[in-house]
Amino acid sequence: MAAQKSAPKSEAPAPSSTRRSEKSRRAIYDAALALVVEVGYPRTTIEGIAARAGVGKQTIYRWWSSKAEVLMEAFLDLGEEAAKAAGDEPYAIPDTGDLAADLKGVLRATIDQMTDPRFDAPARALAAEGLVNEALSREYVAKLLEPSLQLYVARLRTAQEAGDVRPDVDPRIALELFVSPLAQRWLQYTGPISYEYTDTLVDYALHGLAPRAR
Amino acid sequence: MAAQKSAPKSEAPAPSSTRRSEKSRRAIYDAALALVVEVGYPRTTIEGIAARAGVGKQTIYRWWSSKAEVLMEAFLDLGEEAAKAAGDEPYAIPDTGDLAADLKGVLRATIDQMTDPRFDAPARALAAEGLVNEALSREYVAKLLEPSLQLYVARLRTAQEAGDVRPDVDPRIALELFVSPLAQRWLQYTGPISYEYTDTLVDYALHGLAPRAR
Repeated sequence: MAAQKSAPKSEAPAPSSTRRSEKSRRAIYDAALALVVEVGYPRTTIEGIAARAGVGKQTIYRWWSSKAEVLMEAFLDLGEEAAKAAGDEPYAIPDTGDLAADLKGVLRATIDQMTDPRFDAPARALAAEGLVNEALSREYVAKLLEPSLQLYVARLRTAQEAGDVRPDVDPRIALELFVSPLAQRWLQYTGPISYEYTDTLVDYALHGLAPRAR
Repeated sequence: MAAQKSAPKSEAPAPSSTRRSEKSRRAIYDAALALVVEVGYPRTTIEGIAARAGVGKQTIYRWWSSKAEVLMEAFLDLGEEAAKAAGDEPYAIPDTGDLAADLKGVLRATIDQMTDPRFDAPARALAAEGLVNEALSREYVAKLLEPSLQLYVARLRTAQEAGDVRPDVDPRIALELFVSPLAQRWLQYTGPISYEYTDTLVDYALHGLAPRAR
């Protein structure tokens, strides 16, 4: 889901220092993600992350201003690493010419992520914190959610050029017809999640609920 | 949005006792709702609710097992009282024969609720708590969210009988195309909320994103 590169706020260092910094940065990310899975977001602290990563607290504060920032960048990095491992970086929604199939494919991949505890725990922690912390939520949306939604916007624009989506449709709203239902079922446990469910959402959104010929 | 009657778990009492109980129950609801707006859900306690309502803690524990239970029933009651005041109880989505207009109307009314702090604060508090508390979330969904979603199911079924919605469409999934986007924008601050936005969701959902005649 993550799509945007965001570098930690370090100065350009000497090469050997860069290697050390990169190693520390990765250890900090790993520690933050592991702690959120193991003890939950509320009990994850900068001190705990530092101890587990084997770095000083000041190393973390040099690069990030809060545990939410650390977790957000760690989560972003997790998405980038997963995309790299899958060989599809920079990530984009495939364009096979079959819009329905492409959207169904990416939603199925999203379900796979949601059911992976390494993604589910930090994503849910950030979303939960955001619900009662509007500033954090807006940062989470800007850094994590919106970049991934823009991938759908791009694919829907291509579909408009190909004549597969009406030209008067606003892609930024249109994507919500299949993305938001999945998000709500995942976050609020309002219903079961399956490939069949997201396939259905895509079909309903593309073809509409009203009869086509009357 | 609330649609289901749920009585507190008191025994059938004598008439004068009933009046006293009813007065206490309402004072407890009012106190719970006021505290959540004023100090937030995490700092709302059974003790605080009891003090503000002018009842003993044991009065609350006789009827409810947790502050989440109190808040949920208070919120449910708030919805029932609002519906009664508006003269539309039992609440149902109107059927004027114009499905799009009926859905747009109820979504506009939902926006009005969401921007009313008396509804927004407790609804958001329950949703936030539910995000990190699956058991509470499932109760919140069963008691509050699902009953209001079933109103859409009923209206969509009528629309199917009238030939305005395809017979093969599952109404329980279909409603999510316009309800979930609004819920996500409201809960996660993913975008602005307006009547024009929800009107657009209804139009997209009914008519589909794909061109109708090619």
